Amino acid sequence: MNILIINPNTSTSMTAKIGAAATSVACDDTTVIAVQSESGPVSIEGYYDEAFAVPGLIAQIQKYPQTDAIIIACFDDTGLDAARCITDVPVIGIGEAAFHMASFISNKFGVVTTLSRSISALEHNLNKYGLASRCPKVRAADVPVLALENPASNARSRISAEIRRSLTDDGADAIVLGCAGMTDLTKALQEEHGVPVIDGVISAVKLAENLVSLSLKTSKTGAYAWPNKKIYSGAMTPYSPTGKSCKNN
Amino acid sequence: MNILIINPNTSTSMTAKIGAAATSVACDDTTVIAVQSESGPVSIEGYYDEAFAVPGLIAQIQKYPQTDAIIIACFDDTGLDAARCITDVPVIGIGEAAFHMASFISNKFGVVTTLSRSISALEHNLNKYGLASRCPKVRAADVPVLALENPASNARSRISAEIRRSLTDDGADAIVLGCAGMTDLTKALQEEHGVPVIDGVISAVKLAENLVSLSLKTSKTGAYAWPNKKIYSGAMTPYSPTGKSCKNN
Amino acid sequence: MNILIINPNTSTSMTAKIGAAATSVACDDTTVIAVQSESGPVSIEGYYDEAFAVPGLIAQIQKYPQTDAIIIACFDDTGLDAARCITDVPVIGIGEAAFHMASFISNKFGVVTTLSRSISALEHNLNKYGLASRCPKVRAADVPVLALENPASNARSRISAEIRRSLTDDGADAIVLGCAGMTDLTKALQEEHGVPVIDGVISAVKLAENLVSLSLKTSKTGAYAWPNKKIYSGAMTPYSPTGKSCKNN
Amino acid sequence: MNILIINPNTSTSMTAKIGAAATSVACDDTTVIAVQSESGPVSIEGYYDEAFAVPGLIAQIQKYPQTDAIIIACFDDTGLDAARCITDVPVIGIGEAAFHMASFISNKFGVVTTLSRSISALEHNLNKYGLASRCPKVRAADVPVLALENPASNARSRISAEIRRSLTDDGADAIVLGCAGMTDLTKALQEEHGVPVIDGVISAVKLAENLVSLSLKTSKTGAYAWPNKKIYSGAMTPYSPTGKSCKNN
Amino acid sequence: MNILIINPNTSTSMTAKIGAAATSVACDDTTVIAVQSESGPVSIEGYYDEAFAVPGLIAQIQKYPQTDAIIIACFDDTGLDAARCITDVPVIGIGEAAFHMASFISNKFGVVTTLSRSISALEHNLNKYGLASRCPKVRAADVPVLALENPASNARSRISAEIRRSLTDDGADAIVLGCAGMTDLTKALQEEHGVPVIDGVISAVKLAENLVSLSLKTSKTGAYAWPNKKIYSGAMTPYSPTGKSCKNN
Amino acid sequence: MNILIINPNTSTSMTAKIGAAATSVACDDTTVIAVQSESGPVSIEGYYDEAFAVPGLIAQIQKYPQTDAIIIACFDDTGLDAARCITDVPVIGIGEAAFHMASFISNKFGVVTTLSRSISALEHNLNKYGLASRCPKVRAADVPVLALENPASNARSRISAEIRRSLTDDGADAIVLGCAGMTDLTKALQEEHGVPVIDGVISAVKLAENLVSLSLKTSKTGAYAWPNKKIYSGAMTPYSPTGKSCKNN
Repeated sequence: MNILIINPNTSTSMTAKIGAAATSVACDDTTVIAVQSESGPVSIEGYYDEAFAVPGLIAQIQKYPQTDAIIIACFDDTGLDAARCITDVPVIGIGEAAFHMASFISNKFGVVTTLSRSISALEHNLNKYGLASRCPKVRAADVPVLALENPASNARSRISAEIRRSLTDDGADAIVLGCAGMTDLTKALQEEHGVPVIDGVISAVKLAENLVSLSLKTSKTGAYAWPNKKIYSGAMTPYSPTGKSCKNN
Repeated sequence: MNILIINPNTSTSMTAKIGAAATSVACDDTTVIAVQSESGPVSIEGYYDEAFAVPGLIAQIQKYPQTDAIIIACFDDTGLDAARCITDVPVIGIGEAAFHMASFISNKFGVVTTLSRSISALEHNLNKYGLASRCPKVRAADVPVLALENPASNARSRISAEIRRSLTDDGADAIVLGCAGMTDLTKALQEEHGVPVIDGVISAVKLAENLVSLSLKTSKTGAYAWPNKKIYSGAMTPYSPTGKSCKNN
Repeated sequence: MNILIINPNTSTSMTAKIGAAATSVACDDTTVIAVQSESGPVSIEGYYDEAFAVPGLIAQIQKYPQTDAIIIACFDDTGLDAARCITDVPVIGIGEAAFHMASFISNKFGVVTTLSRSISALEHNLNKYGLASRCPKVRAADVPVLALENPASNARSRISAEIRRSLTDDGADAIVLGCAGMTDLTKALQEEHGVPVIDGVISAVKLAENLVSLSLKTSKTGAYAWPNKKIYSGAMTPYSPTGKSCKNN
Repeated sequence: MNILIINPNTSTSMTAKIGAAATSVACDDTTVIAVQSESGPVSIEGYYDEAFAVPGLIAQIQKYPQTDAIIIACFDDTGLDAARCITDVPVIGIGEAAFHMASFISNKFGVVTTLSRSISALEHNLNKYGLASRCPKVRAADVPVLALENPASNARSRISAEIRRSLTDDGADAIVLGCAGMTDLTKALQEEHGVPVIDGVISAVKLAENLVSLSLKTSKTGAYAWPNKKIYSGAMTPYSPTGKSCKNN
Repeated sequence: MNILIINPNTSTSMTAKIGAAATSVACDDTTVIAVQSESGPVSIEGYYDEAFAVPGLIAQIQKYPQTDAIIIACFDDTGLDAARCITDVPVIGIGEAAFHMASFISNKFGVVTTLSRSISALEHNLNKYGLASRCPKVRAADVPVLALENPASNARSRISAEIRRSLTDDGADAIVLGCAGMTDLTKALQEEHGVPVIDGVISAVKLAENLVSLSLKTSKTGAYAWPNKKIYSGAMTPYSPTGKSCKNN
Repeated sequence: MNILIINPNTSTSMTAKIGAAATSVACDDTTVIAVQSESGPVSIEGYYDEAFAVPGLIAQIQKYPQTDAIIIACFDDTGLDAARCITDVPVIGIGEAAFHMASFISNKFGVVTTLSRSISALEHNLNKYGLASRCPKVRAADVPVLALENPASNARSRISAEIRRSLTDDGADAIVLGCAGMTDLTKALQEEHGVPVIDGVISAVKLAENLVSLSLKTSKTGAYAWPNKKIYSGAMTPYSPTGKSCKNN
């Protein structure tokens, strides 16, 4: 099967890291296609960047109509609802993937993300997905996303300090890493802290494989029904459904 | 004062209707500037249209840096969080305006919107704003947004039927009209049903005037902090703060 | 228009302060009538005082049948539900006014009130209005209400210290002042802390003007329906509806 | 022990009925003192009546300082928080008594009250007590309180019809009768419907006996701390603590 | 009346302590029968022990078919739902008894239990009963259950320290002791801290007497309906209904 | 890898069906070991059966210490918390597996189970997992579990009727089948209704494979910490940890 994993920012180094992580856990007969948006911000930190990342994300989805599943590789799950409207293959955000995966192996999970400004969006997502009661606190390490790409930064030690607070002060018994750029720290942090540490990228790959192998597709009868055909002005691509089977054509 | 009211879809007839409603309730010394997006969908129905409407909305905000307050005239409050990040003047969505206004004059309010596909986004907003417990049910009249522009459609009678169900079956004692395009039906429906009927467009105008006259501005210390300066690729306008006073310059 | 603002305690100095604040923000064609109860406690601190303040409050409402809107100027929103039952003009509590106003310009607001004993009533109100999820914590400065009238007290510095904790420890990005007697500290505290500081008195005046100008009145079909006519014994005034239009006469 | 049960309305026939029910379940060494308010409304239906019933209720409490426990015999639990502030003996509302008692013998309980206008106050109480999740729906039989005193009314059949709907449509497996005046219907309705039917008056008597026998008293350290001594104007009795042991004297 | 109080662990010293506490508060005409399980763990600490305690508990219930009420004397309310299925007499857990009793005399109650591993089960129970909003925090004193039986342990001072934190840091104004083995510390801790301290064992006895005297029985129409008759393999006793009146025979 | 899937009832025909479904979706290198309990009820319907099924379930876990993951194949997730305490390999209930899987492809999912008596346990689970807000209603088809094994019963048509109601009346856009015994109806019902239909057995197999391949194990630091060693009386097996790596030995 083909899984399209889209980094909705324009940083190719992060796409490479995400692609490598995704490929490392994929089944032998899974082809991972890792791409980044061609337009939009170089990193996604907060609501403003998020909003500008969606059109580039959708454009990538429309370029790959033969994919079997789609992963949005930003922990904010940028554009998840919009993406589910234009395809009937499964679409998974790495944030929701990590939250749900953590639910199977822990009683309460903590989340450690990059910047404080992102806390609110993650809290809203937890609330929307219904899992807010499973997460006592979302913490920020105050590390900019792109510092994660810089080995000389103190990113890892700051993240590790917040993990410790989450376990001690908040009562978490597992940790979700709140940024796609942290994917390569997963193992080391798990060994350091002795609790499950969950990364969204690899969680999403396995979940996408599951949904495809179980023939489960995005429901097209309610909030994610195919969009009405209508005129889009300006630079926007007009709506054109993707996915293998398309009910309203 | 100047209030910028942005119709985030590209339908000029709807902008005209919105502008007329807004002007009709504005104070004498308020100048209402009603514009629509230059790019994006002709109407906003569901998550997909919503996502594509945000860049055009932000572009309009950046064109009018001298405004005192901004209103987003789509009932989904499209792009509200993103808009609050790039200005420090108040930004109000017509959905939230109507929900809060209804809270002052009723115990429980019902919402009647256009299409079923929009129910989920409104439920998420009510939940996010904290007002879900005040609204027993969001109902859809199954009327496309643009049918509201067509006098020959049966839009009004369908809306009226859902209002009746909301009052009788759901225990609502006031009604919020869930689409900017319904603004001209407000008075007639209020008279017909004998309960307060709240329109978001005119509610938002008065609330915007309030916030300006009380010198209350969008907080810039948490989720709505000024965005970090960064590179945006493609057709996206790079970030450039608007608003009269700008702390991070 | 006429707005009746009632201080439900019997302290005339507080009424003067409230009246001055209200008048300072009212539109030119708004007449603010500031009165206090003739019976009841000299300040309202907790449930017991609150209960005894209601009859005096209702008596004032019945004295001014020609008013266009009513404001209850105690942060507990003392008697709000009862007041809404005997009039069809809008009735606004300064607590709810501040909570809703804060919702438009912040992601999460803190509340700083006078005494710990009042925290519980404010938490109940936030829960009842539906806005509890927007307020991470209600804090008390441990300052008696009447100390706010005494310039020699350390009231302001204690309030300021709690504001700092709310911003730092609780994640608030705006502050609601939880007592009518704090209205004159609003500007100074906003400048000191660099975040929006919201006062209920002036918020309520502007909201009352809005509701009147939009012809929105208290719903009379559900919880706030006109009371049944019945016998009241003792010193209580028998029920007699006020307001301009009265459906059940 | 002495239990003071106060009917906070002024209907002596209802007080007699309440007193009889209370006495019928009290232990041999319990003396039930049933009184009604000397001032206030003849029945309590909705927020307005409720507010006016509190001063008369408090006056009765102050008349009986030697009581061991106090019961407020209105299903709205009128004045419960205020009453708890001026005594350290246990104070129980018949509404909360019934809700908690129902929790021990059912999975979900329905509530059937008199008038629709009272639904909202009961919903607020359930929410405040924390038991809202146990009650799928509060229903009204549209029977005025005083009709319950009139054997010729169709009150019982209307109540019975709502009980049936609660069991069938709402999934309740026990029923709470939502008015002190329904206390004499309890047994007949239980036999008719074959599920537990809970009355607040008799529940409160047994709970009051419990609390006294276990030496459990109202906490005086938080929301129910003794009121500050202060001036009350007009006809209001100045604050004077009751109860057997009084910490702040 | 006869009340069967079952210690679902196999420690006879704890049964003796529970029986003594129960008898000390029971009415003169109440016979308390205190037993422990014949099979299962010697103490119940966490989910694993809890699961193994249920069959022994049910076996005891089936041995005493003539009882009028049943109390489960483990603070986790082990097997409460299962027990309610095989009898129609009231079944009360000491955890729920304490939580509900605390609700009548406090605004917010804290819980202090033995080991951290038990916190999660108590949080789940509070949530299931609906009372989670009344309890700001469940704390553990890190004292094993059986240390409570050992006078030389520092159990009491550790419990007392957590009570202090609950009152100061969490805003509790009453304390629930979260283990049947703490029943003999109740009075001393109440005197030490000056707030109500609630023990589940004695609370449950009085509540059981109440329910019996009011003829309130477990509802048999919903979640607690009599089990279907079916084959049980292995050492399990086949289902055989107990209780005085048994509808499905 | 080895996955142990335990049918916690004693019906071998159901185990065969479950094993076949599990094997049909497992990866080539996964060995599915399907067993049923040796003691306990022949089917699990409600709280009573559930309680008696746990010891048999735990006994099976202890018989297979070399397994890589464990699945509990009863939709009530019988004994899930207890099982997680005695192993560090992942343990998944088929109920939670289906709920989480449905969350990725739908906005709101309905649940259709067998008997009304089971609704309450499923509602409690949804609440505990945090996903209650995603499921508008749990419905029962009033089909006994064992009727699903009988081709002559009208089980399928009754289930199908409830699915229709869930989609139309409750606003669900996907359906979770609420019983392990329904696993063979999944495809047919999905085709009939045109929405995703999710079965817990096959969902759990794929999720178990995921967790193993990502080396994610049950957290042993909080609620699921290894049990304390203690004496178990009667027929109960004393605690003896399983799983490949065991920290407390």
